[in-house]
Amino acid sequence: IVIDGVCPLLMEPGNVTYYMDGGLTAAVPTIAIRETAEQTLRIFGRWHRFIEGHDRLRLARKASDIEAAKQAGDMAIVFHFQGTDAVEDDLDLLDAYKALGLGMVQLTYNVKCRVGDGALERTDAGLSLFGQDLVRRCNALNLIVDGSHTGERTTLDAMETCDGPFVFSHANAKALHPSPRNITDDQMKACAATGGVVGINGFPSFLGDDSRPSLDRFIEFIDYAVDLMGIDHVGLGIDYYMGMDPIIPADKARARYDDAIKTGRWDAAVYPPPPHYFPKGIETPVTLSNLTAGLLARGYGDADVRKIMGENWLRVFRQVWGG
Amino acid sequence: IVIDGVCPLLMEPGNVTYYMDGGLTAAVPTIAIRETAEQTLRIFGRWHRFIEGHDRLRLARKASDIEAAKQAGDMAIVFHFQGTDAVEDDLDLLDAYKALGLGMVQLTYNVKCRVGDGALERTDAGLSLFGQDLVRRCNALNLIVDGSHTGERTTLDAMETCDGPFVFSHANAKALHPSPRNITDDQMKACAATGGVVGINGFPSFLGDDSRPSLDRFIEFIDYAVDLMGIDHVGLGIDYYMGMDPIIPADKARARYDDAIKTGRWDAAVYPPPPHYFPKGIETPVTLSNLTAGLLARGYGDADVRKIMGENWLRVFRQVWGG
Repeated sequence: IVIDGVCPLLMEPGNVTYYMDGGLTAAVPTIAIRETAEQTLRIFGRWHRFIEGHDRLRLARKASDIEAAKQAGDMAIVFHFQGTDAVEDDLDLLDAYKALGLGMVQLTYNVKCRVGDGALERTDAGLSLFGQDLVRRCNALNLIVDGSHTGERTTLDAMETCDGPFVFSHANAKALHPSPRNITDDQMKACAATGGVVGINGFPSFLGDDSRPSLDRFIEFIDYAVDLMGIDHVGLGIDYYMGMDPIIPADKARARYDDAIKTGRWDAAVYPPPPHYFPKGIETPVTLSNLTAGLLARGYGDADVRKIMGENWLRVFRQVWGG
Repeated sequence: IVIDGVCPLLMEPGNVTYYMDGGLTAAVPTIAIRETAEQTLRIFGRWHRFIEGHDRLRLARKASDIEAAKQAGDMAIVFHFQGTDAVEDDLDLLDAYKALGLGMVQLTYNVKCRVGDGALERTDAGLSLFGQDLVRRCNALNLIVDGSHTGERTTLDAMETCDGPFVFSHANAKALHPSPRNITDDQMKACAATGGVVGINGFPSFLGDDSRPSLDRFIEFIDYAVDLMGIDHVGLGIDYYMGMDPIIPADKARARYDDAIKTGRWDAAVYPPPPHYFPKGIETPVTLSNLTAGLLARGYGDADVRKIMGENWLRVFRQVWGG
């Protein structure tokens, strides 16, 4: 079972081939970040059509769907929001998204929204009233709540409100590299206390100042998270995305980058300009199996490697979704 | 098994109590008529929330869900569109609506739309290119296609394009009363040839000129349909709705009516002003069981009554949806 807990590279569904070639059991496409409800509905429609027309894909609504995909040699798809703009002002939309197959909801994307403050905001005032209601509704609907890209206070508030596992789908230890997109030991320990998972992120500027990070550097973040939280709370949230090298040409990557800066979703101090190179050896999802060898070489036992590579995610999915 | 194939009275979900008190096994709320995709998504969200919070309701995605509801003393809900405005220009939205539980799609609502001409239109030019694609997509998604409120040519075209049962969820024989909302013998026979069902409508002006029609008059339309198409192709599509007597006060009914006239969806020659009284004895869904007695008194055998009251609908549901 190999699961990457965050796959914005799948904002283009056709990119599933990267993950399938890499032997993934489940991929977690980003369905919406800043989209309206109407735009989000269209994206769901496109994805349902895509899965229906693809003989090796299946939608995961229960943990057992992922196990069945493994058995059949298929790949499972977990729908994920990176932000709550799609919920607009109406929590009943979450009920609709759940019916559409949504599995996990990230509270904010770097900037302030109705729910709380983002990780790159000027303020970090904590979860809003609407945000509290949203977390409770996620609990009622068996949706996983995700604190990535979200301000520290907002995530700590959310973990107090949330019943059951709370995750950081993709976030690294601030103790190893002080990016505002990374998270504190307090956040990580609180996450582990809920039974959740922190997905270790391969985006270069969240690993350090090296624009071409090594696999060893990536594994250092795994080591740190395992040491702090225990082996049951660390997974992958590698964050392969549409603007990375070598997915799209440099000029298009730059245009995407400029747009993210312009809208305030990215900050140049936190996200340096492209090209963005993921860790050597696991540059794209196709090469992800090299991580298994890297972990074994580092001294992790088979059972621990399986937990990190996907079983911890699967445990959270089972606990929240059932099945 | 008692199924009313069209329930615009459930545009207010709380009105389920009328149907539950009437002993219905399945009700078919109108989710959208002229709503945008975004509005429709919100309505689905509201309904999913409502069903989740109601211990005697369950969503029907398969025929067996309705049988299970019967067994448990629950009521099943079948989501229905009366029109295709919610599909906007994007057939993938149908994939999303299917995932949201949509079961049946009516092509037009009285006026012209992207798909074809409505039953009250000036023209009846037939199914559009988009309409052909929509019917094919409905087939691919196992959605039932419904020709009610739609122009004759458009429905005949649609029946040629459609694989499997095609229905008129709520439409009466024009041979008995020449309302433009009623359908010709050709339409009824073509529907039966697909294996479909025509739901007999209780809206007063589709039954005749009597503003307070009798139950006998309603049953005359059943008799006619059974004689023309055979017992396997006649069901209920009674059309109890939000503006009928005695559901809402006269002034509110009038305001709804004026809006329907103003938007061209209704025509005063076809839809006289309220109050609108449904047939005596079955004035509201609560009293629907009186129809069973009426049919038995008219000489229908038990098996035939069961077909008319719901089993024919269930057969179509099973054939199109499976289960």
